[in-house]
Formats: sequence, C-alpha cells, structure tokens
Amino acid sequence: MTATPETQDNDAPLVLREDEGGLVTLRLNRPLQFNALSEAMLAALQEALDAVAQQPHVRCVVLAAEGKAFCAGHDLRQMQATRQLAYYQTLFAQCSRVMQAIQALPVPVIARVHGIATAAGCQLVASCDLAVAGASARFAVSGINVGLFCATPSVALSRNVSPKRAFDMLVTGRFIDADTAADWGLINETVADAALDDAVARLAQQIMAKSPTAIRYGKQMFYQQRQLPLDDAYAYAGDVMARNMMEEDAQEGVTAFLEKRPPGWARP
Amino acid sequence: MTATPETQDNDAPLVLREDEGGLVTLRLNRPLQFNALSEAMLAALQEALDAVAQQPHVRCVVLAAEGKAFCAGHDLRQMQATRQLAYYQTLFAQCSRVMQAIQALPVPVIARVHGIATAAGCQLVASCDLAVAGASARFAVSGINVGLFCATPSVALSRNVSPKRAFDMLVTGRFIDADTAADWGLINETVADAALDDAVARLAQQIMAKSPTAIRYGKQMFYQQRQLPLDDAYAYAGDVMARNMMEEDAQEGVTAFLEKRPPGWARP
Amino acid sequence: MTATPETQDNDAPLVLREDEGGLVTLRLNRPLQFNALSEAMLAALQEALDAVAQQPHVRCVVLAAEGKAFCAGHDLRQMQATRQLAYYQTLFAQCSRVMQAIQALPVPVIARVHGIATAAGCQLVASCDLAVAGASARFAVSGINVGLFCATPSVALSRNVSPKRAFDMLVTGRFIDADTAADWGLINETVADAALDDAVARLAQQIMAKSPTAIRYGKQMFYQQRQLPLDDAYAYAGDVMARNMMEEDAQEGVTAFLEKRPPGWARP
Repeated sequence: MTATPETQDNDAPLVLREDEGGLVTLRLNRPLQFNALSEAMLAALQEALDAVAQQPHVRCVVLAAEGKAFCAGHDLRQMQATRQLAYYQTLFAQCSRVMQAIQALPVPVIARVHGIATAAGCQLVASCDLAVAGASARFAVSGINVGLFCATPSVALSRNVSPKRAFDMLVTGRFIDADTAADWGLINETVADAALDDAVARLAQQIMAKSPTAIRYGKQMFYQQRQLPLDDAYAYAGDVMARNMMEEDAQEGVTAFLEKRPPGWARP
Repeated sequence: MTATPETQDNDAPLVLREDEGGLVTLRLNRPLQFNALSEAMLAALQEALDAVAQQPHVRCVVLAAEGKAFCAGHDLRQMQATRQLAYYQTLFAQCSRVMQAIQALPVPVIARVHGIATAAGCQLVASCDLAVAGASARFAVSGINVGLFCATPSVALSRNVSPKRAFDMLVTGRFIDADTAADWGLINETVADAALDDAVARLAQQIMAKSPTAIRYGKQMFYQQRQLPLDDAYAYAGDVMARNMMEEDAQEGVTAFLEKRPPGWARP
Repeated sequence: MTATPETQDNDAPLVLREDEGGLVTLRLNRPLQFNALSEAMLAALQEALDAVAQQPHVRCVVLAAEGKAFCAGHDLRQMQATRQLAYYQTLFAQCSRVMQAIQALPVPVIARVHGIATAAGCQLVASCDLAVAGASARFAVSGINVGLFCATPSVALSRNVSPKRAFDMLVTGRFIDADTAADWGLINETVADAALDDAVARLAQQIMAKSPTAIRYGKQMFYQQRQLPLDDAYAYAGDVMARNMMEEDAQEGVTAFLEKRPPGWARP
C-alpha cells in the first residue's frame, strides 16, 4: 500500500502486475476512485486473471490495492449513466465472471486487505481462496444504503459466512472490523497494519514451498467437491487424489518423507 | 415481555399483532403454556404471517413472545392425545409450513428471544432471518429427552450451525446459553436482558431506514441463491440485482450518494 | 491411551473392540505406526464398523487409538510400494467407504482424539458425529507436505469447517491446536488431557440415556436432510419425525414428561 496520492495518472494501468518468481501480485490501481470496479477495471482484472491462468510458472497470486481503500465496489457514477436493464445485466455478469475466475484460477489467490472492502469489494475478498487483513480494515456489503441489495456479493458472502451474519450485513449495510471478519471466517487472519505485507508474503511463501502440481490438483477439486452430494464428492476426490499420487512430485514427496530429507519438486 | 401471569385469558388471540408504521410485532400469547406450538397456535401464526405477506406497507417483522419463555416447541399433551401416523404427518407438515413462511415472507423477520427456546421453539429462532436474545435466554433441541428426535428442527438448525455442534445439541438435548448461540451463529447478538427491547427496536429501525424495494428484492434472492450451484447462483443474483438497479429507489439512492445527501425512498 | 510401547505385537488385532453395555470402543492398535490407515487397518476398521451396524444392542461408538498419536493418515510406505493408478483409486475408495460407514452407522460415533490427527486421520475426526480432544491434540491435513493434496480428507473437512479455514489447512499443511479446532467446529470440545476419558465417557453416557430408537431415527435423517433443498428436507424430516412419534419410546417419553417422572426406554 502506498499513501493515497493527491492526483493519479489516469493513463496508468488499472491493474498493476508484479512478478517475483512464481508469485504474482495484482494491484488495483485507481486509488482516487477507491479502486472501484468500473467496466474498465473489471476488464483489466479479468485480463490479468486470464493471463495468470495461462502461465504454468505462476504458483500463487496476491490481490492487493493501491491507496486508502482495498476496493469500494461498483463504480456508481458509471452505473448511473446508463439506465438500461440489459446494461446492468451485462455489467453484473461481467463482475460475476471475474469473481468466478478467481476461484477457477489453478493457483491460490490471497486477498491482501487494507482500508475498506465494500459491496463488490467485499465480494472480491470473499471470492479469494485466502485473505489476510490489516487490523484497521473494515468490511461491508453496503449496497442496501443506496437502494441496491448486494445480490451478487451475497453469493460469495453466504458461502463464507453463516446465514444470519451474512443477512445482517446485507440488510443493515453495517461495517464489521477485521477481527470480526476473521472470527466469522470471511478472512483467515488479522495482523497489525504494519505487519500486513510480511504476513501475506509469509503465507505466499508457505504455499510456494509446496508442490505446484499438488496445489493445482487440489484447488479445482476443493470447490468442485463442495457442490456434490457426499458419495459423489468422495468418488471424485478419490480419483483426483489417485491421479495426484501418480505424479512425480508425489513420488518424490513421499520418498523424501520416508528418507527424512526435504523434497525437491519438479518445475512446472 | 410481561411477567408471566397467574392466569391467562384463553379467549385472547393466540398471536398478538402490534403495528408501528411498517414494523409489525407478532407476539405468541399463551404464556402459561410457554407458547407451545399447538395446532391452533401454528394456525394463528400462519395466518398472521400470511396477512403480513399481503401487506406491502410492512417493512419488518419482530417475532416475540409473552411470559417467561419464548417458545417451548410442540404441545406434547395435544400430540399425545391422537396417536395416528397421519395426524403426526399433518402436524409436522403444518409446522414446517410456518417455518418456511417466515423465510418466504418478503420482509426481514427478527426473533426477539428471552427465556427458553426449545425444540420447535429453537427452530423458530433458527428460521428467522435475524435473532437477538437476552443474556439469560437458553436454547435446546430437546425432543430427544422425550424419545422424539427433533427432526424438523434439525433442518433449520443445521442450516445455521456447523454439523458437529448441531448434532451435539440434537443427541444430548442440552441447553446452550445465549453467548454460545451467538458464537455459533444461531443468533446474531446477545444483549443484557433489560436492553433486549431497545436492541431489537434499533435493528428494526436500521432495516426500516433502507429502501423497502431493495430489501424485498434481497430477501427472497438470498435464500434462493444459497441452494444453487455457484454459476447458477451468480446468473440468478446478477439478474435480480439488475432489476433492482432499474427501480426508482436505486436511482434515487445512487444519485443521493453521489450528491452527498440522504436518499428519500418511494413508499411501497 | 496407553504410553507408546517400545515394541508391538504385530499379530495383535489392528482394531481393538471393547464392549460395556451398549457402548463400543474401537481402538486403532498400531501405535508404532501412529495407527496409519494401511489397507489392513482400513479393512479391520470397515469390518468393525460393519459388525456394529448389525448389532441392535449397540448405542454409541467411541473411536480411539493406542499410543502417542490418534492417526497419522495413510501408510505412505505401503502406498509407495505399488505405483499404479488403479491401486490408488481402489485404496482411496476403500478409505472413503470407511469414512462414509461412520456416518452411515445408525448410532453416534465420538472421536476421542489425542496426540496428532493428520491427513486421513484428521478426516476420521471430521467424519465422526462428535469429537472430543485433549488439549495437546493437534490437527492437520498435511498431504501437501509430501506433494499429495488431501483431496478425500477435504471432503469431510470442508463439511465441518468454513471454506477459507479448510483451504488454509489444505495448502499450508499446518497444524491447528485443539482449541482452534473447537473454535472452528472441527471438534466439539477440548478438555485437559487427563480429563479426556472422563469427558468422552460422560458424553457417551448422555447419549446412552436417551431412547435408542429416537437416536437411530435421528442420525440417518440428520445427514440425509442436509443434502436436500429446504422444502424436500422438511418433507422428509417431517415424515421421519411422525414415524418416530408412533414408536413406543416416544409415547413413553412424552407420557413420562407429562407425568413428571423419568422415562423408561424399550430395549432395542
């Protein structure tokens, strides 16, 4: 996070990408707009995610943001400008595609949350696989305050948080603090604001120390099996696990374990 | 809550209704029977909910109860009197209809819980969208103590509370206190007993300050989308949100926000 | 729990069974292998569960383990020895059958957890209806450390623990302590290590004081209804509850309650 600038370069990329080995940081880059999910921002984020999906060397993604806020949701001014049902349907479909692309990405995505994450910004956090927030971060699904129930955010929120808590947030629009978000399971961990980058880096490194192959087997399977009846879930997960076990990395990992030495993973 | 009377007027309505603007308070009114869900009580509650469903001016419902207990579940004496499978099937279907009517109601329902909420009484709390309890309130699904597993209550309970906790309550019949209920997500909040009415009123007022149109779009969608696979849920929620955005209230809400003034909602 | 022996009798039964009235304790008995779920151990556990399923006098099962660990998951040495997809598919199917047999058992199963429960050992805990752990117990789904994502364990884990917490455990392989496991709903309760046997016995006695008939009606219904849409869940649960109400035990239980005397249950 950088301090919010007084001005911003509107020709700068909407989403900044930094690569450090297999770690990709995607950074929402419209701080003066609190990184609102305009059509252009959604398109830039979709493009960035699609690029990552095609790159087998990527091991982990951090989703971060410039300025004072993580993300304040949709761009209300832009939404107001075109009052057409088909326009809104297309816009929310575009946004839902981005959220599902995060989950469909073959590698883990960690939300690095500071400031506020509201409406579709809170949905972004809920849609990531993991989330770490600074202690001063706050979360709300606040569309209800402008007469617009956060319907698509509720899809992600209600798959992370128990129903009465999700409903409360949705009908009151109230903020919850980072500790409450961690207690409710919306995020994994709250750390001191100053420790946020370190905590995210540590979590990313933990993941990157694992077999990339195994992580890729796991992520897709994880969300898929949750939607299946128990016996179908087991049949599917058992097959995935058997295929994972046939991979070189699993053979190496198990052998290393039995030989009490650290494993060396194949490069993807 | 009034103190439990020594006697009660058995000709008094089983469910009392009070209206204050768009806020409807439904109050179970058989304190000497701990507001047991007799056939007559279920019919009265169904009728009260059906009436609310037809009244577009209603914005929020509080479900409360007279006397020492919120609700002690089914009327065991009445159940004992007719030992017929078809009778019990009809009775539990009647009860399940009431519980689903709470969720089907287009406006939020807040349970105001004091004393005990047991068996189908605990299910009533679980079936409401939101719940606030006094610190001395206690919750159990205690049918197991009389040889009757709380099957229909488990439907609502297990959709609010994680499986091992729900199973524990169901097979031991034990009480949990209000703080535990809040920690587990069965209720939203515990307050001092003396502060219960204020806390419920405050929550109702928060909801009633929002656009009634947006709330109605949201409640039905919320429960519907939870039962869908992720992509279907997004397709459905996106369409609902687009329609909500076309409403006058959303246009007013967004405009007011951009103009930094309070919104004025259309009367329903 | 006994202290881990220096040697073990490899001809001893893999799973020990102790009967005390209707309470069956199944005890994994390969302490030197941390009770790894070898093919033989899985077969022994399946056989023990199948036997219990056929015995109407059984009222409750405790799943415990000998030695320092509860269960360390699959037997990696054995898995390493046969590198064939079909072998792994069969192995994970065998393991999934055991896990589902716990849930399909008509009586409650309590995990008595001490030491570590890792990978499929953590899945065992998640698959039990109830779990009590000593304060020093620790839980992980640690396959990722050997290049093998805990796919089948994730099926049980993600049905007990919220998604971000489950995902965190699965991709980091990290341990959580017993208090965290209780906070997240993976287990019901943490007690001092020295109090573990008493706590498990107390919970088992609570369950065994209930009507065996009602418990059997309830357990199967509980897991079945969770997988159904709300209206189907209610239709099913209502029918089960009506049938339960027709049983002698329910008649006795309700009558005893109304007569303010303790109930006497029929022997199964």
